[in-house]
Amino acid sequence: MTTNRTSTTPLTLLGLGGMGTALARAWLAAGHPLTVWNRTAAKAEPLAAEGARVAASAAEAVAAAGLVVVCLLDDASVGEALAPAELTGKDIVNLTTGTPAQARERAHWARRRGARFLDGGIMAVPPMIGTPQAGGYIFYSGDHALFEQHRETLAIPAGTRYVGTDAGHAALHDVALLSAMTGMFAGITHAFALMRPEREVKPTEFAGMVTEWLRAMAAMTEAMAWQLESGDYTEGVTSNLAMMSAGNATLEATAEEQGVKGELLAPFMASMRERVALGHGDEGLAGLVDGLRGGSPQR
Amino acid sequence: MTTNRTSTTPLTLLGLGGMGTALARAWLAAGHPLTVWNRTAAKAEPLAAEGARVAASAAEAVAAAGLVVVCLLDDASVGEALAPAELTGKDIVNLTTGTPAQARERAHWARRRGARFLDGGIMAVPPMIGTPQAGGYIFYSGDHALFEQHRETLAIPAGTRYVGTDAGHAALHDVALLSAMTGMFAGITHAFALMRPEREVKPTEFAGMVTEWLRAMAAMTEAMAWQLESGDYTEGVTSNLAMMSAGNATLEATAEEQGVKGELLAPFMASMRERVALGHGDEGLAGLVDGLRGGSPQR
Ligand SMILES: NC(=O)c1ccc[n+]([C@@H]2O[C@H](COP(=O)([O-])OP(=O)(O)OC[C@H]3O[C@@H](n4cnc5c(N)ncnc54)[C@H](OP(=O)(O)O)[C@@H]3O)[C@@H](O)[C@H]2O)c1
Ligand SMILES: NC(=O)c1ccc[n+]([C@@H]2O[C@H](COP(=O)([O-])OP(=O)(O)OC[C@H]3O[C@@H](n4cnc5c(N)ncnc54)[C@H](OP(=O)(O)O)[C@@H]3O)[C@@H](O)[C@H]2O)c1
Repeated sequence: MTTNRTSTTPLTLLGLGGMGTALARAWLAAGHPLTVWNRTAAKAEPLAAEGARVAASAAEAVAAAGLVVVCLLDDASVGEALAPAELTGKDIVNLTTGTPAQARERAHWARRRGARFLDGGIMAVPPMIGTPQAGGYIFYSGDHALFEQHRETLAIPAGTRYVGTDAGHAALHDVALLSAMTGMFAGITHAFALMRPEREVKPTEFAGMVTEWLRAMAAMTEAMAWQLESGDYTEGVTSNLAMMSAGNATLEATAEEQGVKGELLAPFMASMRERVALGHGDEGLAGLVDGLRGGSPQR
Repeated sequence: MTTNRTSTTPLTLLGLGGMGTALARAWLAAGHPLTVWNRTAAKAEPLAAEGARVAASAAEAVAAAGLVVVCLLDDASVGEALAPAELTGKDIVNLTTGTPAQARERAHWARRRGARFLDGGIMAVPPMIGTPQAGGYIFYSGDHALFEQHRETLAIPAGTRYVGTDAGHAALHDVALLSAMTGMFAGITHAFALMRPEREVKPTEFAGMVTEWLRAMAAMTEAMAWQLESGDYTEGVTSNLAMMSAGNATLEATAEEQGVKGELLAPFMASMRERVALGHGDEGLAGLVDGLRGGSPQR
């Protein structure tokens, strides 16, 4: 466990799908000795031509380097691929998408087998890998010493953000950001549907207004966070739930006029209405967070 | 109808609620002779002290100037307040929130009574009015000559964006942006709910990541617009519906693990799933827009 600060740590990569291949190219381009393995061997061929060493099995690939990056389809494929490998003394970095609980269990599993474990959540698509200016990054959580030791190597494909020793936190941050984005995309889809009958409004012109507006309004996240942190959901509220809920009537009536189904926004509007009916109309959006909690986290 | 390009056009303002009062102060501060009226007279008193002329009735207020700005609760209150007034030759700018159809009808109504009509949708809260650096603005649509003639006067309280001669288009742009924002807020609420059990993650730190991520991902709006404009929903797609829909399983499983109800995101995820099942998994999000259309627009 000595600190390795050269920029060319040898490493192994399991998985050469769209994402794995992009990761492999980034490390090869940066001069890292790289051993690769993929279940379907043909996908490794172009990388061999680019300088990668190709292992015949996952176990052989794992044996080739102390740092082992895994980027497979899902958590089950990670368990399957690593089952025959000797993991004692290895540093495993799992970039396979999974839930927080899967990452926590996989961390225990790796530790029981004598390995250190770091989980990652990739906030990028393959074309952004290895192009630092494209803005993608990877959340990491789990073994902090592992992260510190391999920080520079991990920074080659994309920016790194370490979010804590709980191995589940990288996946949780990943999923939370994707969930926020999913809501935003639902809103944008509804907005385009409203505009659809207006042939004289060009979607590309309208899009610029939407993007600019959402970027400005995203600042509301910070106001919500302050309220959640203080526990006072009425603190510094400019638009309260009562005002927003009253305004929703115009949004609903307009959707109806324009021939658009209100289903994407309806559950959130209903939750505002309910919270106002409970006498909390003076709260900000933070007042809606706890109402969404339907049970205890599974640990 | 001569062009008036001085910055001190006299005008009348009906309605001194939170928004009306902010508008009044902006015009007074810019030196515009201003006549105000409010149903509850007491709200006009502070403005009288600041230089506004207070009219005893809406009709008297309308008679006092050629340019009449209206900022009341809703469309019905506009009809009620203006009923006894002589509108011939007046320029009416209606900043009262309403639906596109209400704006179109109000425009016909005003024209029948001999007035020109411009509708507005205010994308700002009262504290942003009169502070150009705060970034708020007002969508305008309807009579273009009216807008051009009073452009500088209208630019005093907030930036102006003229979006076409259809009087309903300001309200439609307003509602479309608020709808997109509503979806985004739903997503952010879900994200905070996911993080709620993690006492070691500070909401304010997490919020910074959410804001940054949403601002970056808002660029997806432009990709959707290009596809909607071309009619080819598979054009230049990086993350297609099949991939996103498969990824939703992790989002759903994580919500379950964290004890969060999935209701805010469920309808959008269902619409992705349906579109993929129909064989359109290679499309981008633009492929979901038409499925949201449930009828013809009411004109
Ligand atoms: N692509 C993205 O935009 C993106 C973004 C963020 C995160 N990710 C995550 O990165 C991971 C990989 O994504 P990808 O885009 O590279 O996926 P992909 O193109 O579908 O590749 C899947 C990889 O997993 C392998 N695999 C599947 N089941 C296996 C098993 N049972 N045993 C061994 N190998 C198995 C496949 O091997 P074969 O070649 O033999 O089928 C292939 O190498 C996923 O967890 C994904 O969620 C992807
Ligand atoms: N505040 C915001 O953040 C915001 C943002 C964008 C758009 N807007 C829009 O701006 C408009 C005004 O908003 P606001 O915040 O000023 O609302 P507000 O504070 O509730 O004031 C409502 C105004 O409407 C008047 N009114 C209501 N019914 C009336 C009637 N039947 N006849 C005559 N006057 C009547 C009220 O007069 P009384 O004083 O006699 O009750 C008051 O002047 C609304 O359409 C709102 O949607 C507001």
